Amino acid sequence: MSRENLSEETINLHRAFRGKIEVASKVPVNTATDLSLIYTPGVADICKAIAENPNEADELTSKGNMVAIVTDGTAVLGLGDIGPKAAIPVMEGKSLLFKKFAGIDAFPLCLDTQNTEEIISTIKALAPTFSGINLEDISAPRCFEIEERLKKELDIPVFHDDQHGTAIVVLAALMNALKIVNKQKSDTKVVINGAGAAGIAIADLLLYAGFVDVNLVSLEGVLRKGETWMNPRQASMAEKTNLNGIRGGLEEVITGADIFIGVSAPGVLSKEQVKMMRKDAIIFAMANPVPEIYPEEALEAGAVVVGTGRSDYPNQINNLLAFPGIFKGAIHSRVRDITIDMKIAAAEGIAKVISEEELSPEYVIPSALNQKVAQTVAEAIEQTVNEKEECLV
Amino acid sequence: MSRENLSEETINLHRAFRGKIEVASKVPVNTATDLSLIYTPGVADICKAIAENPNEADELTSKGNMVAIVTDGTAVLGLGDIGPKAAIPVMEGKSLLFKKFAGIDAFPLCLDTQNTEEIISTIKALAPTFSGINLEDISAPRCFEIEERLKKELDIPVFHDDQHGTAIVVLAALMNALKIVNKQKSDTKVVINGAGAAGIAIADLLLYAGFVDVNLVSLEGVLRKGETWMNPRQASMAEKTNLNGIRGGLEEVITGADIFIGVSAPGVLSKEQVKMMRKDAIIFAMANPVPEIYPEEALEAGAVVVGTGRSDYPNQINNLLAFPGIFKGAIHSRVRDITIDMKIAAAEGIAKVISEEELSPEYVIPSALNQKVAQTVAEAIEQTVNEKEECLV
Repeated sequence: MSRENLSEETINLHRAFRGKIEVASKVPVNTATDLSLIYTPGVADICKAIAENPNEADELTSKGNMVAIVTDGTAVLGLGDIGPKAAIPVMEGKSLLFKKFAGIDAFPLCLDTQNTEEIISTIKALAPTFSGINLEDISAPRCFEIEERLKKELDIPVFHDDQHGTAIVVLAALMNALKIVNKQKSDTKVVINGAGAAGIAIADLLLYAGFVDVNLVSLEGVLRKGETWMNPRQASMAEKTNLNGIRGGLEEVITGADIFIGVSAPGVLSKEQVKMMRKDAIIFAMANPVPEIYPEEALEAGAVVVGTGRSDYPNQINNLLAFPGIFKGAIHSRVRDITIDMKIAAAEGIAKVISEEELSPEYVIPSALNQKVAQTVAEAIEQTVNEKEECLV
Repeated sequence: MSRENLSEETINLHRAFRGKIEVASKVPVNTATDLSLIYTPGVADICKAIAENPNEADELTSKGNMVAIVTDGTAVLGLGDIGPKAAIPVMEGKSLLFKKFAGIDAFPLCLDTQNTEEIISTIKALAPTFSGINLEDISAPRCFEIEERLKKELDIPVFHDDQHGTAIVVLAALMNALKIVNKQKSDTKVVINGAGAAGIAIADLLLYAGFVDVNLVSLEGVLRKGETWMNPRQASMAEKTNLNGIRGGLEEVITGADIFIGVSAPGVLSKEQVKMMRKDAIIFAMANPVPEIYPEEALEAGAVVVGTGRSDYPNQINNLLAFPGIFKGAIHSRVRDITIDMKIAAAEGIAKVISEEELSPEYVIPSALNQKVAQTVAEAIEQTVNEKEECLV
């Protein structure tokens, strides 16, 4: 479909249906008896059962399968701060994906505040209706504090998808790509271009997963201990990254790198730079819709495994592979928190959907539409929970 | 169905379905093309259209038909302050009724705070996702301030159903009942037993609708100018009610009354008291499940029209007759506020569903399951809007 036809068709679809989600009934609502069961007087017995044992809300109400998708509309797609109303279409779309891939009910809540404390207190007030909170499209650095505080202060899982969803899928793709090029995590040099929410989360997860030489590049340059232009989160990452104290930008750090991960801007990686990387380079160029380098060029310059954020090239790095299964596993296990071990397990789950025989440079990550992935991820999470006995129930 | 069977069946139903509502898709989600239309990249065009013109959110997202049912769980059914999780089953039930009777999507949000300011700021933060706010089961006197403030500070309708829904249905029933007994509003003496949120809202609406001699009775006695035990809201009502300065309780004020409206407690109205009322008394005894007086006794004592809150007696006074149509009319007309004129129009709409020929002492108010009512109410609201040109669009 051409870009113009797509635009017209998507507008027509949204206008015809007036959006994409509805609140529907799971039970019959026809007779007076139905009414007496679902509403008064019967419902009072359900209320009393939950008042006696609040955990029963998970079994007797829709809460047990309900996730809130919460945004303030400040970092929506590549569009930036477009406000809460304009963010609704994305959150509704995400709600459909939760349902389609994990059977989870997810309700979009687009907040009319960008104040960190107000966002935190609003989400805390809302929590009783939900079994999990998916933070979405909240700009850095507020997203870090909001997630950290809520993780501490709520007893249901809180997950900022733009950070951790991306990180998990990148790790999954890397696990498989390293098999293709026959390299070990600990022996590779990783360059992450983009030191915002996603870049930092990727670096954090890779380090925890066993990568050692990780380098983060912001618009100002390579994160490096002692640089004065870094924000607090970047400064903390500088302690664990750039082991060789490289000073400069992408140009300086790319030499000898095994892996390039782009969460930055169109066209910022040149063929010449790819040629400066080590043999059998892996490149995930995820800027959307125009990647840091087009796959054709990266391959011409010698890269072996190339992925993007696009569905029309091989190896699409898409959050959709992570969040439905993550939440399915987490809310079914009734965990309080999605731990870093669960994230690693999720990445392993995604990676192993592709068998050794199927694995190829053009197929290191499953299709975003692969229906097996969410269940595999959910099972990986649940197994981690069982092993660690972190289950609440 | 016996009370015990009902209890067992309602628990089984809620457990089997794990609650009653789900977030469902209105559009197809099957192919890669579907995904590109509902999510990335197509959805970006919808975001941009709304960023340019925020009113488009009503047409291009589910917001245009979405109401929030918000409670803090402090005044749920007759159960009182049972907390937000235990309130979910009632709010889910209400969501189903919104859908069934008005085609409106309504999402329950049960808040983990009883602080007036926090409730107000939470609802304000949530507002962009919704076209209306149905406040529910919030205890007095906080419910008054919360509703008043939100009505001022939000540009979408806010409606506390326990106050106004009840008042509208009572007024509708009275309009028809007065035809039966051939009395005029302005010539009747009204006694409202119960001076909480519902009682005060009923008194307010009746006064605006043309009733003159209205008397409100609290547990402390008849509201009366100068009494020191009244809360501010009751003190303000004392200015407009109890024109004859009656001192005392129900016993003192019931003499010569034409209409008794009970929003109080089981069995508080005796046959002897009914006999003290004027000829052709009208009695709406709405305490649930045990009314202020049972209909058999009220009729024996000389009352002519008797209603209760129960579905197993004639003339059930049920909010369900009001809120679906009220919101349908209000959100379709895109009004900022549900005005008192709209409430009167809604009551007239409900009353006129029963034709002159059908009208009888046992049938002054339509059945709660009557599917015509919501549409009639919605049309009455929309007509009021058109007449007053208060429409936003």
